[in-house]
Amino acid sequence: MQADKERIARLLSYKNLLHRFESMGFVRFFSDNLADTLGVSASLIRKDFSYFEIVGHRKGGYYIDAVLERIHEIIGYDEEHKVALIGVGRIGEALIQYEGFKNHHIEIVAGFDNDRNKIDENSTPPVFHMEKLGEFLSNNAIKIAILTVPGHVTQPVIEILQEEKVEGVLNFTPIELKSTDKLMVRDINIEAELANLIYSVKQLKDKQYN
Amino acid sequence: MQADKERIARLLSYKNLLHRFESMGFVRFFSDNLADTLGVSASLIRKDFSYFEIVGHRKGGYYIDAVLERIHEIIGYDEEHKVALIGVGRIGEALIQYEGFKNHHIEIVAGFDNDRNKIDENSTPPVFHMEKLGEFLSNNAIKIAILTVPGHVTQPVIEILQEEKVEGVLNFTPIELKSTDKLMVRDINIEAELANLIYSVKQLKDKQYN
Repeated sequence: MQADKERIARLLSYKNLLHRFESMGFVRFFSDNLADTLGVSASLIRKDFSYFEIVGHRKGGYYIDAVLERIHEIIGYDEEHKVALIGVGRIGEALIQYEGFKNHHIEIVAGFDNDRNKIDENSTPPVFHMEKLGEFLSNNAIKIAILTVPGHVTQPVIEILQEEKVEGVLNFTPIELKSTDKLMVRDINIEAELANLIYSVKQLKDKQYN
Repeated sequence: MQADKERIARLLSYKNLLHRFESMGFVRFFSDNLADTLGVSASLIRKDFSYFEIVGHRKGGYYIDAVLERIHEIIGYDEEHKVALIGVGRIGEALIQYEGFKNHHIEIVAGFDNDRNKIDENSTPPVFHMEKLGEFLSNNAIKIAILTVPGHVTQPVIEILQEEKVEGVLNFTPIELKSTDKLMVRDINIEAELANLIYSVKQLKDKQYN
């Protein structure tokens, strides 16, 4: 069964909060502790926990270390995730330098670009010419890619990813991609989100003034 | 009535495609033209058009200029949208330099940061110290903000935005914000999207192997 997006997002916020509880010296916590801090109902938290088979202690409450271990297992943080980033433009560059992925056991192991000025095979992570993409994916068994190329090169890149059996793509291009059985896609279209926001604000105002 | 996210995303893709049709010399188009190019059904397109009150010509088909005008009106592109960007870190910097917003009649008119090294009041757009945020929003009647600050400064910034009657926020911080009657929020949590993707890929594999 596929958990919905909101449920996973909540799981991540539980995880972050439990790490904070842990750093404060907590060993056990109650669903109410999470609920109060996150501003959601304790019953929703218990439902999420039951969905993900996170079990409490028979004396009540939950052990933080056990719950975190289970969450990491669910989310796949019990292993490191090597990610390739394709398209080292402005957004690509920001993501490649972004420190926050480490907390999620995600490592961008290489960047790829067509522009020779962007290429630096000795940097950390290295940036290779796009020609080397297929070979790199295959040699390093990369399963996840971040796509930050211009719209018109999306399709040829997707074909390489499919050929090399990449399984997940985080798509920042303006081209909407469809998930298939073999390749999961999450679209992040910043322009569209912003346009969407402006539209929603406009709707809200029209409603208020009419 | 509030259109859902997918519907607005489709409207934006119709818009982009119609601009391309226009540049190819088209004057009229049929729902099948859009359907074939976008890989969606013509009936879905007609439903969207009817939802947004986009009307065809009595002889059949649609006039591109009339449809584009109507789409621009719906999305709010009949006016320019001035946006403030708060937090000029890596993602903030990438967004501030991003050319693609212009196509959406969106202009980032100023950046704000606490770090004096980031501040440059003479650049285009200028980057001001966070102290000047409230005054700038109020003087320039800014209604939309992009939030790219670290998590722990999200709340104080939101309070300033509310005070200055900002109506929409595109939120890139890891803090999930709730929309209110007065302030619409769209969350873009890149870490969570990536973690979510990894989780989904894992689920897919577990399903295939079990």
